[in-house]
Amino acid sequence: MSKLLIVGTVAFDAIETPFGKTDKILGGAATYISLAASQFNINSGIVSVVGGDFPKEFLQTLNKKRIDTSGIEIIEDGKTFFWRGKYHNDLNVRDTLTTELNVLADFQPKVPDHFQDADFLMLGNLHPSVQMAVIQQIPKRPKLVALDTMNFWMDNTWNELMEVVAKVDVITINDEEARQMSGEYSLVKAAKKIHNMGPQYVVIKKGEHGALLFNNGEAFFAPALPLEEVFDPTGAGDTFAGGFIGHMANTHDISFENMKRAVIAGSNLASFCVEKFGTERMLNLTEEEIQNRLHQFKQLTQFDIELS
Amino acid sequence: MSKLLIVGTVAFDAIETPFGKTDKILGGAATYISLAASQFNINSGIVSVVGGDFPKEFLQTLNKKRIDTSGIEIIEDGKTFFWRGKYHNDLNVRDTLTTELNVLADFQPKVPDHFQDADFLMLGNLHPSVQMAVIQQIPKRPKLVALDTMNFWMDNTWNELMEVVAKVDVITINDEEARQMSGEYSLVKAAKKIHNMGPQYVVIKKGEHGALLFNNGEAFFAPALPLEEVFDPTGAGDTFAGGFIGHMANTHDISFENMKRAVIAGSNLASFCVEKFGTERMLNLTEEEIQNRLHQFKQLTQFDIELS
Repeated sequence: MSKLLIVGTVAFDAIETPFGKTDKILGGAATYISLAASQFNINSGIVSVVGGDFPKEFLQTLNKKRIDTSGIEIIEDGKTFFWRGKYHNDLNVRDTLTTELNVLADFQPKVPDHFQDADFLMLGNLHPSVQMAVIQQIPKRPKLVALDTMNFWMDNTWNELMEVVAKVDVITINDEEARQMSGEYSLVKAAKKIHNMGPQYVVIKKGEHGALLFNNGEAFFAPALPLEEVFDPTGAGDTFAGGFIGHMANTHDISFENMKRAVIAGSNLASFCVEKFGTERMLNLTEEEIQNRLHQFKQLTQFDIELS
Repeated sequence: MSKLLIVGTVAFDAIETPFGKTDKILGGAATYISLAASQFNINSGIVSVVGGDFPKEFLQTLNKKRIDTSGIEIIEDGKTFFWRGKYHNDLNVRDTLTTELNVLADFQPKVPDHFQDADFLMLGNLHPSVQMAVIQQIPKRPKLVALDTMNFWMDNTWNELMEVVAKVDVITINDEEARQMSGEYSLVKAAKKIHNMGPQYVVIKKGEHGALLFNNGEAFFAPALPLEEVFDPTGAGDTFAGGFIGHMANTHDISFENMKRAVIAGSNLASFCVEKFGTERMLNLTEEEIQNRLHQFKQLTQFDIELS
C-alpha cells in the first residue's frame, strides 16, 4: 500500500457565506487534503502543528478516516492557527478577516520515522521553507512530489518558493497565481514558464471553471461539476489536490494518462466539499456517491466524434 | 442536403484590441454564423439587410463559401449597420464605442422563396420581432430552431423576446445573460428556468471558460481550447453558434448525443475565429486544420476511468 505524506496546516476556520456562518471549526490545508486522500486505499499521514486548544476529537475524526496524525505536533501552551473569512454573494470572492499564525509562526516540521519512506509527498500551502524542510527529511526521493502554494508566498518569500518549486514534479495553483508567478496572462504561456521553473506537470485550478493539467506541450481539462448550490467553497482547492495525489498514490502509475484520471478524481471530490460548511460533507461521503458522480463527470465530458 | 436559414446582422465592424485596430471590416452575427456553418456540407442562406455602401466584394466573399446571399436586401440609399468596439487587456471586457443601426432600424426581413422550406433555422442576435417575422415566414416548422440573443433585448424588448423564446428548440446565450434572464445565479438553476420559457436545449456560453449544454436534467460541457494567444474575440460566440447549427444541419440528427458533438464543433471553430482580426481566420481555414484541432479537443477532454 502506498505511503502518502502530507504537510500543511491543521487549523480552526470561522466561515461566513451568504448562506450562514460558523464558529471555529476544523479546517486547514492538510485536513482537507488528507480527508480527500482518505477516499483511496492508501496509508497517509500528516505533518503539522496545533496548539493545546485543539480538541482531541478533531484528531480522532482524522484517525477514524485512517489518517496517521502522529506527525501533528501539539504545542500545549500554544494556540492553533486560526483563519476567519467571509465570502461575497459571488462565492469566487472572499475577504480574509483574521489570520492568527499562532503555533505556525515557529513551526519546525518533523517527519515521523515511519513516513520517511513515503512514496508520495504532498506539500500543502505553507511557508516554502517548511515545505523544503520536509523534502530534506525524506532520504529517498518519493515517486511523486506535488506542491500547492499561493500568492502570499510569491509576494513575501519568492526566493525560498523558487527553491522548492525547482524540486517538485507537480505544482497546483490557481489561475491568478499562475499569472502572477509567470508574468503571462495566457495560461498556456504561464504553464510553459512554470515548467521551466522545475515542475514537469502544472495544474491550474480555476474554481467553478474547472482545472487545467499541462505536461510539456500536452493539456487536459477537467470541468467543475455544475451544481445547483455551492454552499461553502472553503477547502475545495485542497480537496482537489488531495483527490489528485490520493488517486496517484492509490494507482502507483505516474503516466500522463493516469494524471488525467487524477484530475477528474480531484474535481469529483471537490464537487462534494462545497456542498456543506467546512469538512462536513467530506466526513460523510460514501463510495457509492463518489462513483455515481464519476458517472456524471463522464456524461458531462465524454463525446464520440468521428475524425478523418 | 440540409437547408439552413440564418437571420442576423451583416455589418461593418471597427475593432480595437491590445494588439491592433482595424478600419471598417466585414462583420455581423449572420456573417460569422454563416462562415462557421459553411465548413459543413449544407446549403445555407442569410436573411439580412445592408446599405448601398456595402462592398459587392463582401457579398462575393460569402458566395465563394457557398453562402446564398439573395436574402440580403440592399437599401441603395441607406447605410450599413456599424459597430465600433474596444477590448480591454482582459479580452473578456469590451466597450462599445459606436452603434449605428442605420438600415437595420426599419428592417423587415423577407425569406427568399427557395429558403421557405429550410430544415434548420438559426435566429442570430437581432430585434426579437425580426426573429419572429422570420419564423412566421416558414410554413413548415423546421427540424430545429436555434436562437441567439443578448442582454440588450432583455432590457428593452422583454415581452417580444419571450414570445420568440417560447417558439425555439435551442437558445444560446452567455452566462451573465442566462443569469439576467432567469434571475438565478447558479447556471444549473438558470438553465431550468429557461427550459420553462420554451427551449428544450439551453446552451450557456462562457467565453474562454467554455460552454455548457443543458437538456432537462442532463448536462454536457465543452471547454474552450487553451490558446497561447487570443487576438480578437469578435464573432467567437456567433462562430460557436454557426458551428453548432452547421453540425446539426449536416448530420440531420437532433439527438442529445449528437448535440454534444455540435457543441464541440462550435467550440472548435470558435478557437480559430479568435486567432486573427474579424473574419480573417475563418476565411482561410482548411478541413485539415479543423480535423487536427478536433484531435486536440479529444486529447483535452477524453479520459478513461474505471467505474464500479
